[in-house]
Amino acid sequence: MIRPQVVIVGAGFGGLAVARGLARAPADVTLIDRHNHHLFQPLLYQVATAGLSPAEIAWPVRRLVRGQANTRVLMGEVTAVDPARRVVMLGDGPVAWDWLVLATGATHGYFGHDEWAVHAPGLKNLDDATAIRGRLLLAFERAEMASNPDIARRLLTIAIVGGGPTGVEVSGAIAELARRALAADFRAIDPAQARVVLIEAGPRLLPNFPEPLSRYTADALGKLGVEVRLGTPVSCCDADGVTVGAERVPAATIVWAAGVTASPAASWLGIAGDRAGRVPVGSDLTAPGHDHIYVIGDTALVRDARGKPLPGIAPVAKQQGAWVARAIRARMVGRPVRAFTYRDAGLLATIGRKSAVIAYRRLKLRGWPAWWLWGAAHIYFLVSLRNRLLVVTQWLWSYFAFERGARLITGVRPR
Amino acid sequence: MIRPQVVIVGAGFGGLAVARGLARAPADVTLIDRHNHHLFQPLLYQVATAGLSPAEIAWPVRRLVRGQANTRVLMGEVTAVDPARRVVMLGDGPVAWDWLVLATGATHGYFGHDEWAVHAPGLKNLDDATAIRGRLLLAFERAEMASNPDIARRLLTIAIVGGGPTGVEVSGAIAELARRALAADFRAIDPAQARVVLIEAGPRLLPNFPEPLSRYTADALGKLGVEVRLGTPVSCCDADGVTVGAERVPAATIVWAAGVTASPAASWLGIAGDRAGRVPVGSDLTAPGHDHIYVIGDTALVRDARGKPLPGIAPVAKQQGAWVARAIRARMVGRPVRAFTYRDAGLLATIGRKSAVIAYRRLKLRGWPAWWLWGAAHIYFLVSLRNRLLVVTQWLWSYFAFERGARLITGVRPR
Repeated sequence: MIRPQVVIVGAGFGGLAVARGLARAPADVTLIDRHNHHLFQPLLYQVATAGLSPAEIAWPVRRLVRGQANTRVLMGEVTAVDPARRVVMLGDGPVAWDWLVLATGATHGYFGHDEWAVHAPGLKNLDDATAIRGRLLLAFERAEMASNPDIARRLLTIAIVGGGPTGVEVSGAIAELARRALAADFRAIDPAQARVVLIEAGPRLLPNFPEPLSRYTADALGKLGVEVRLGTPVSCCDADGVTVGAERVPAATIVWAAGVTASPAASWLGIAGDRAGRVPVGSDLTAPGHDHIYVIGDTALVRDARGKPLPGIAPVAKQQGAWVARAIRARMVGRPVRAFTYRDAGLLATIGRKSAVIAYRRLKLRGWPAWWLWGAAHIYFLVSLRNRLLVVTQWLWSYFAFERGARLITGVRPR
Repeated sequence: MIRPQVVIVGAGFGGLAVARGLARAPADVTLIDRHNHHLFQPLLYQVATAGLSPAEIAWPVRRLVRGQANTRVLMGEVTAVDPARRVVMLGDGPVAWDWLVLATGATHGYFGHDEWAVHAPGLKNLDDATAIRGRLLLAFERAEMASNPDIARRLLTIAIVGGGPTGVEVSGAIAELARRALAADFRAIDPAQARVVLIEAGPRLLPNFPEPLSRYTADALGKLGVEVRLGTPVSCCDADGVTVGAERVPAATIVWAAGVTASPAASWLGIAGDRAGRVPVGSDLTAPGHDHIYVIGDTALVRDARGKPLPGIAPVAKQQGAWVARAIRARMVGRPVRAFTYRDAGLLATIGRKSAVIAYRRLKLRGWPAWWLWGAAHIYFLVSLRNRLLVVTQWLWSYFAFERGARLITGVRPR
């Protein structure tokens, strides 16, 4: 008997959940990713802000599924999907599937201004994070040597574009980095004078959260010294800074945490994506017109019962992945499949030391209880005991010593 | 009163020891390094072989001297020294000194074959280490997808050139990585079949060690599956492998642990260096003809009482650095200075799990006692408590789980 072939593209939260859900299925599973590691993206901003090391939030994909004899892992870049021949193209070679799961995630979108990307890098993978970390720390090093106060001031200005959870978390972490961890280490400059400017085009931060938590977040960031600009989009990013409405903010470091674009799954399938490039799927999570192709996680546009799109967060991807694994197993034996529904896992964002916001159903938490809960939840969801121990060690150290554990500039040469 | 200016170029073991020794000296100290971090080089091979993360063996230089009010840190590349004007050129700008310490370390030498560098990278800084790690792990990933067994075999062959401590440590660590940590993670290939070939031009491994320890090391590496080639130099390195005498070893990964060349200090001073580019200095550690310029660590050629050059290891650099700080303080007040003598701190090299060699005066240790002592010594010498905790966690995890904590491929794109 020929076993059905399941190909999963992407080993993020969604793709990994599918693979795990198929561990004992009578099928051959191929899990493909561009990277060799699964990334715990919710803590990626801490790598970018020198708090954690890359390996503390990443695990080799093949290590995670090595106990599953029916599963192989291939590292490579999928370049096309051929639904008629039922293959994906991996580099030059085709990989055949009977069931295909596209869990390819999202990347940065610059609203048609791709030329901004080089000046305002986004934060999606480990290389992004270490590059931003290097750029940020190098700006302080250069400011220490700058002869001109205007240049020093520009070097000590960091602009963050986008007021969602990533923008909030990056801003808070950079403000604390400058005001605490770096404060005593320089002689010519005072790192505590660094300007951190968070820019959100919409009327409030954390637009997915209840409004009172948005207000709390803006206040809490203000207390950390972050300048919050609401209601005006960025109209230009270049080598010298950003333009926000009529205001020019000279800044050496710009972090892009705004527009997100889904990976090219929609164009692979010849389907019109939504504005963010996501594939609209129904409650069976299959692509329109392709009942053997599932699309999940940030790549998919799925609406809840009230028509609101599900957010691009880990619990959504994980639940969809687990559901798809169950659906494939059911359909392989002709069992009926119930529609996918998302069980709300809440929304969380951290702002800084002892400050976070959590919205879970009717519950709204803020301040230190939210912060502790946020920390505990993240430790809990880290994949291995080793990583939990390492992250806890780093966090306790940072908490008591007001320091950062990974202040490295790598991959760049000084001038 | 104008305070004397001390400029230290290089924040490795030697330069940092000078800076620390001058903490309470009535002088202004400037510590310059190309990187923002001090690196614990003895464990760099563990970063290259996926055992440790970069931040676990590196610390921001300015953090290490932030308590010294008389010391500033500049990150940048020194391009020239002008002994007549008493300045070093840092990028475009001059930095003036009354006392200069050159502790710029060493880099790889390819015996006149610089074209080998791209195929056979060496291991001196964190970027080297993560690049080698990526190349090594990527070779296994590609082998898993290779259609042709010859290609797979080449991908699974790793050649290490140079049988000193670094070559021995890298070979042993790669053999264990392939045979233990990776063994169960692949489907199409058996990582335990990887060939690890260690090539030494001289007649024995670890030429600085007593001969019985060299023999023990070759035997122990053999038991780990490392093929040791002695007595023949490499005559070619290219994209497909290495040539050793009449033998061609097709290899996708080559690690250069042979020739070391001192940094350009000798040419900055217009002094003829030795074959390895080191500045010959006497027992006062000043450069010939420049009594206010000290040269220490791997940059200097210093001979012991019997005329044998001191080895390029951390204890030599540290003792020289501490001595130079004392010498500068003494000379500033006209006190006499006694000649530098090296107190033997022994030689150590680790081979693999429960296997290391230590030569300390008449003592020769091998096997697991040497291994435990090696581990304890390295933990002891790590700079901060945080790093000790992190490294111990990683090591205990590796020891009991036979795993590696940092199996990340970063900075490279798959094909």
